Amino acid sequence: MEMPSKTRLMDGWKVVAVIYLSTTRKEQPNLIHGRYIGCSGYLPVNYTERTAESDSWTLHRSVSLGVNSDSVAVTEDEEECGGGIGPLSFLRQINGSDSNISTQTAANENSENKRISLSNEESQSQSLPEPSGPRQIYIMRHGERVDFTFGKWIPYCFDEHGLYIRKDLNMPRRVPQRAGGPEGFFKDSPLTNVGELQARLTGEALREAGVVIHQAYVSPSLRCIQTCHNVLTGCGLADKIAMQVEPCLFEWLAWYPSSLPDWLTADELRAAGYNIDAAYRPIMQLDQLTATGCQESVQQFYVRSHFMMQKVIANTQAKGGNILMVGHAATLDVCSRQLTGHEPRSSQDMTTLIKKIPYCSMAMLEQQQQQANWRLRQLPIPPVTHSNNQRFDWEVLLT
Amino acid sequence: MEMPSKTRLMDGWKVVAVIYLSTTRKEQPNLIHGRYIGCSGYLPVNYTERTAESDSWTLHRSVSLGVNSDSVAVTEDEEECGGGIGPLSFLRQINGSDSNISTQTAANENSENKRISLSNEESQSQSLPEPSGPRQIYIMRHGERVDFTFGKWIPYCFDEHGLYIRKDLNMPRRVPQRAGGPEGFFKDSPLTNVGELQARLTGEALREAGVVIHQAYVSPSLRCIQTCHNVLTGCGLADKIAMQVEPCLFEWLAWYPSSLPDWLTADELRAAGYNIDAAYRPIMQLDQLTATGCQESVQQFYVRSHFMMQKVIANTQAKGGNILMVGHAATLDVCSRQLTGHEPRSSQDMTTLIKKIPYCSMAMLEQQQQQANWRLRQLPIPPVTHSNNQRFDWEVLLT
Repeated sequence: MEMPSKTRLMDGWKVVAVIYLSTTRKEQPNLIHGRYIGCSGYLPVNYTERTAESDSWTLHRSVSLGVNSDSVAVTEDEEECGGGIGPLSFLRQINGSDSNISTQTAANENSENKRISLSNEESQSQSLPEPSGPRQIYIMRHGERVDFTFGKWIPYCFDEHGLYIRKDLNMPRRVPQRAGGPEGFFKDSPLTNVGELQARLTGEALREAGVVIHQAYVSPSLRCIQTCHNVLTGCGLADKIAMQVEPCLFEWLAWYPSSLPDWLTADELRAAGYNIDAAYRPIMQLDQLTATGCQESVQQFYVRSHFMMQKVIANTQAKGGNILMVGHAATLDVCSRQLTGHEPRSSQDMTTLIKKIPYCSMAMLEQQQQQANWRLRQLPIPPVTHSNNQRFDWEVLLT
Repeated sequence: MEMPSKTRLMDGWKVVAVIYLSTTRKEQPNLIHGRYIGCSGYLPVNYTERTAESDSWTLHRSVSLGVNSDSVAVTEDEEECGGGIGPLSFLRQINGSDSNISTQTAANENSENKRISLSNEESQSQSLPEPSGPRQIYIMRHGERVDFTFGKWIPYCFDEHGLYIRKDLNMPRRVPQRAGGPEGFFKDSPLTNVGELQARLTGEALREAGVVIHQAYVSPSLRCIQTCHNVLTGCGLADKIAMQVEPCLFEWLAWYPSSLPDWLTADELRAAGYNIDAAYRPIMQLDQLTATGCQESVQQFYVRSHFMMQKVIANTQAKGGNILMVGHAATLDVCSRQLTGHEPRSSQDMTTLIKKIPYCSMAMLEQQQQQANWRLRQLPIPPVTHSNNQRFDWEVLLT
């Protein structure tokens, strides 16, 4: 049993009892005193639970009195989840016919867009170094989200004309215009400025480690597109690699029971300055994904993701090169699990795992000599970690 | 009484009981559901306690079983605190003789330094807009620190030759060379990259709000100098305003019982690229501060800080203009408290208050028509807030 080593006074609220029981002490570093556990070869632990002089401690999960402690943890995204989960029509399509479900994403492609956004093959052949060594796939979660950081931001950050008003310096200076108005951001949050920094630092580190990316696939979520853009910017490749928006990279549909997000179109994204590949033919059409609602079991989520990975690898095998894929927390697992010879996880195991995948987490797959075999490898770059900080109200000085 | 609304499973540790008792419900917003409290005119609440899919909850202070809940909260800096606190010799000097305690900080000033770093009066007269309107003083805490974010980073981030090795992408790419070697960073932490971003965003916002800074005073702590540099960079003034390093802006000496930090010299700071005013004559000499150890009561801390503010205001009154002061959490209070007509706080009240002052918090004083009167005013810029994130270990995917 371990107790918090410091006592704190609580304005208005009191924590009467906090008791920690160690059941597997060996696996738990002494986070307060920073005992070395050497789990990654980088820093032994990080101190993000030590929130300096701000007003908080971080509690690594809590279990309410009287509640079964084996309950599956609930994530933010799971607030979107509900209803029954059944077989997906697109999964039947996948299983029945692989070759006919790719079509053009960008309906309104025109010559101007072509100038702005060369297809990936064109831009790649012009300037990227030739692929060498075993192929690598970098799978990444997006960076810090505005909605998780600021809660119900939309009613406070848009005026009656739908004009965006930045209310915190960590909010983006501008947000893309979307046809459906600001409410569209409710299910499709932008990144914070810290989120963009995390992604840019990741890209800079890849470049410094000598990693060259040849292709970039990205979930249609704005936060993923912004993350991918910032990684490529950090890599010095934002103008050379046009992002391939792939609906099949979107997260578990069960978390969107009422309806999927109304994603920004390729034209809206290009208008906001993102280099979107207008010639890319996605593995799964947007309407195939949206038509299914949340009727997706976790097993089907793994199968969908694995199907996509097999298609991506096959489609790029001839040219070779390294791939960046930017999606969601679960993406790191659902896109690597079966390629490395494992079975899909249960929903409980998957939701437990994704809580260990913070913003801008990355995993790397490397192709083995037997071409069908891939394995997860140590990343060539360090992680990116930052600590908590709360909002300041200057009027506390008047008290 | 309120219970956490979500249950979570804990790897190896279990929180058996977490009970929140509301004693002053009115002051406590419903943070989980984001109820409007309208305390600052910006966003109603922030959600930094909602740590998305990462593995943590934020607990707003905890009180161990069996411990008096009236205990004063302990901050990180207070770990440095101890021993008796008595009258300060410099305080007697202050009270006895104001005019003779200023001397030259930079002993090795030479013509090259003069070229790099004009004295503030020179640079100011060359390019800054003339002061207009009532004088304003912006008082600020530094940004996110490496040590509070990463714990015992020094043994892991310097090799046997004292060479810095960056182990997380949120650590600085480089750290300044210091004569005393890396151990000097133990009491004098640099900023993280997020910390630099917070400060730069603050500066950009000041510029966008039309605020012109004419003078910058900064605590000798590296984190403060880096914060001030980034604010001025955001303002577009980093090359126009040379920072005036003022030992009197350093924090409560009681938190440094064994010895004060061995700060970087002006030459070391200039070598690291910081625009330090070599001609500045500090209000308190470095050795006057260091000679006192931690023999400073909280009352004396307020008196020292107020004395400095009076001197700064008097010294700059003829030219006028706005002042940026970058210090520590308590700086916002100790440098404004008596100017606004209030008595110094007790140590308990001060330590309770500073927990409400996160990284890059800012307060603004404005001079009233009666020149001796100042008041705290609403800032012209929003706060800067970001959320928690933990380190990712890719090997969790292998489980």
